[in-house]
Amino acid sequence: MDIITGGVNAPTGFEAAGIEAGIKYENRKDMAVIFSQKPCVAAAVFTSNVVKAAPVKWDRKMIDESPFVQAVIINTGIANAGTGEEGMRACRETAEAASECLGIPANAVLVGSTGVIGPQLPMDRIKEGIKKLAAAKSHDSSNGTDASKAIMTTDTVNKEIAVNVSIGGRTVTIGAMSKGSGMIHPNMCTMLSYVCTDAVIGKDTLEKLVRETVTDTYNMISVDGDTSTNDTFIALANGMAGNSEIVEGTADYEAFKEAFRYVNETQAKRLAGDGEGAQALIECRVVGADTKENARILAKSVICSSLTKAAVFGHDANWGRILCALGYSGASFDPEHMELYYEGDMNKLLIYRDGSGTDYSEEEATKILSEKEVRIIADMKMGTEEATAWGCDLTFDYVKINADYRS
Amino acid sequence: MDIITGGVNAPTGFEAAGIEAGIKYENRKDMAVIFSQKPCVAAAVFTSNVVKAAPVKWDRKMIDESPFVQAVIINTGIANAGTGEEGMRACRETAEAASECLGIPANAVLVGSTGVIGPQLPMDRIKEGIKKLAAAKSHDSSNGTDASKAIMTTDTVNKEIAVNVSIGGRTVTIGAMSKGSGMIHPNMCTMLSYVCTDAVIGKDTLEKLVRETVTDTYNMISVDGDTSTNDTFIALANGMAGNSEIVEGTADYEAFKEAFRYVNETQAKRLAGDGEGAQALIECRVVGADTKENARILAKSVICSSLTKAAVFGHDANWGRILCALGYSGASFDPEHMELYYEGDMNKLLIYRDGSGTDYSEEEATKILSEKEVRIIADMKMGTEEATAWGCDLTFDYVKINADYRS
Repeated sequence: MDIITGGVNAPTGFEAAGIEAGIKYENRKDMAVIFSQKPCVAAAVFTSNVVKAAPVKWDRKMIDESPFVQAVIINTGIANAGTGEEGMRACRETAEAASECLGIPANAVLVGSTGVIGPQLPMDRIKEGIKKLAAAKSHDSSNGTDASKAIMTTDTVNKEIAVNVSIGGRTVTIGAMSKGSGMIHPNMCTMLSYVCTDAVIGKDTLEKLVRETVTDTYNMISVDGDTSTNDTFIALANGMAGNSEIVEGTADYEAFKEAFRYVNETQAKRLAGDGEGAQALIECRVVGADTKENARILAKSVICSSLTKAAVFGHDANWGRILCALGYSGASFDPEHMELYYEGDMNKLLIYRDGSGTDYSEEEATKILSEKEVRIIADMKMGTEEATAWGCDLTFDYVKINADYRS
Repeated sequence: MDIITGGVNAPTGFEAAGIEAGIKYENRKDMAVIFSQKPCVAAAVFTSNVVKAAPVKWDRKMIDESPFVQAVIINTGIANAGTGEEGMRACRETAEAASECLGIPANAVLVGSTGVIGPQLPMDRIKEGIKKLAAAKSHDSSNGTDASKAIMTTDTVNKEIAVNVSIGGRTVTIGAMSKGSGMIHPNMCTMLSYVCTDAVIGKDTLEKLVRETVTDTYNMISVDGDTSTNDTFIALANGMAGNSEIVEGTADYEAFKEAFRYVNETQAKRLAGDGEGAQALIECRVVGADTKENARILAKSVICSSLTKAAVFGHDANWGRILCALGYSGASFDPEHMELYYEGDMNKLLIYRDGSGTDYSEEEATKILSEKEVRIIADMKMGTEEATAWGCDLTFDYVKINADYRS
């Protein structure tokens, strides 16, 4: 697997663009398109929130019922959530406008939105934006970068990645763009992530791969515990790499899966590390767990703990908070028979063992806690299962960003 | 029911004291005693955290196995959690020292600790403190107040209450002291709450009452979602009011239950409103739910949402965050058929109905959001069940308090 330059439109036959549509602000890219020259199989995972934004409902239906997908139109500024019937009509009109401009069926168009909950989309600007996107879209990597910038909200950096992987002698490319954890008018921690590939892969196989990968990547991050109404992960495969079809149980499948996972784990970590106000990425690796599910529960509990997050912001090696968060996770274990470590770039510090703290050096611990990536390891001593979760520290800026009035 | 002056030692036969033992700081009350002249039946609820502090384990065992309880010794500064065997020994030695000074069996002594996780208790100072407590304890209300101050950590006010209720012609008194949400060296949101009564009531009846009351009071508050290793609620009844025994299914039971619930709901709301850094109490009342359990889940999800809490801090009527928090609570409902309100002291504002926002006045909403108590009402339109949960806003000070280094 090779990491290459480029992003979501790096795979053969994919085009992208990001433009200014003036949805809420002047002088800011706020609409993006992903377009494939050939029809794609698609697989997706959406928010588990009972309150689902209109684009989530539209995309779910299209991916389940349409014979193929060929484009995604995304806007920022307004989430199109809590918008009732009018919100669903906005999705349909967006798809119809894109259908006309791109020359593809309306049911091959997916839509995505992120922004404030409540207001309706300004459909005149959306339609003008689609015309601009159709004119601007191309395979150039600068266009992919524009698209990744156009989906940003309070993200401080755009997030794109592309890799090549050899499948049966052919080079297959996977490209992605994602946005995270915050909004200009903050409402939630919306995650949007789009992964395109030119691989030949069946819809069922892609779906299985998506489910497995999301469980260990995007579902293992948290910025503030608030599951948005709009969370969206979509994978598109247009088959233009011409490889022999990727089938489960083969070496090709494993190679593709590894590359696919790498792309998504990288994007997930970037989302966590660029959480609202974040100054550090927190990684919690749970090893020696009795079941995979418990390993996940324990690791997530640590990175979701407000007190642990605040302690990392304060560079405070306050291991009691980690132990406490493991304890209320819902997974059972024996606190008298386990170990906690802080791991830095240079060293690994045992801080708790078998019921009480060790006499570790607070100075060394503070040094580790001051790094840009703070790694916590919990060895449950119960079995061989592992899981890793990623979050960020809780800072003054998180409160500032989210207490600011919407206007 | 009458609210009277006084606190935990207001019921007949109860004595209290709060003194300086120098456990971690100079010039600060940090040890308290509750003592009953006669043996008490006791009922308790402790933290659900798998990691339980030594005092929690000690108290659980004494309440389950001892014939009666007659005193509680409480310290702040050190939580006696994550302290292994030595921590359990500290509980036993504390009980033995209290037994000697108070002239009661060691297995009639409960212990409570709140503070930093990890360090061992300084047993020499604890033992000196017990001597001082035994000398100082009395039925005076000023002594009850001292005790309520001695259990404070980052609480900004002490929290005590007492009520009289007439049971079969006799006046029964219930008194309580509680501490909340933060620590001098913060580690967790430890809740300690002690309720004493002179009522004649059987242990089984008291236990049932405690379980029912805690479910709707202390279990419906949250400051930061971190369930401490030390959370403790203990009720003691010494029978000195001489009423005929309170038995379930009678008018006396209902009268006592109402007073008991009032005392605990008041203390729980005070804990939430005095959460670390809090500037406002947030109350979320869910009505029209299909089941009581779902009403609780929905109400708690709203008051736990970091984004909702930050919006209240910013006086921002950002109802999308409330809808979002209801949506990810785990309870199912139809967002297209429900209503959300903000309720102020003077008015009630419908802000969301049947799938979209109403054209409410932002100005009026901001006014409600600026009060010291912010009330949110969600009408699920599914049934007749209700529940109320209490939390606080998320402020810069919460981050400041919890990012500060332990030293």
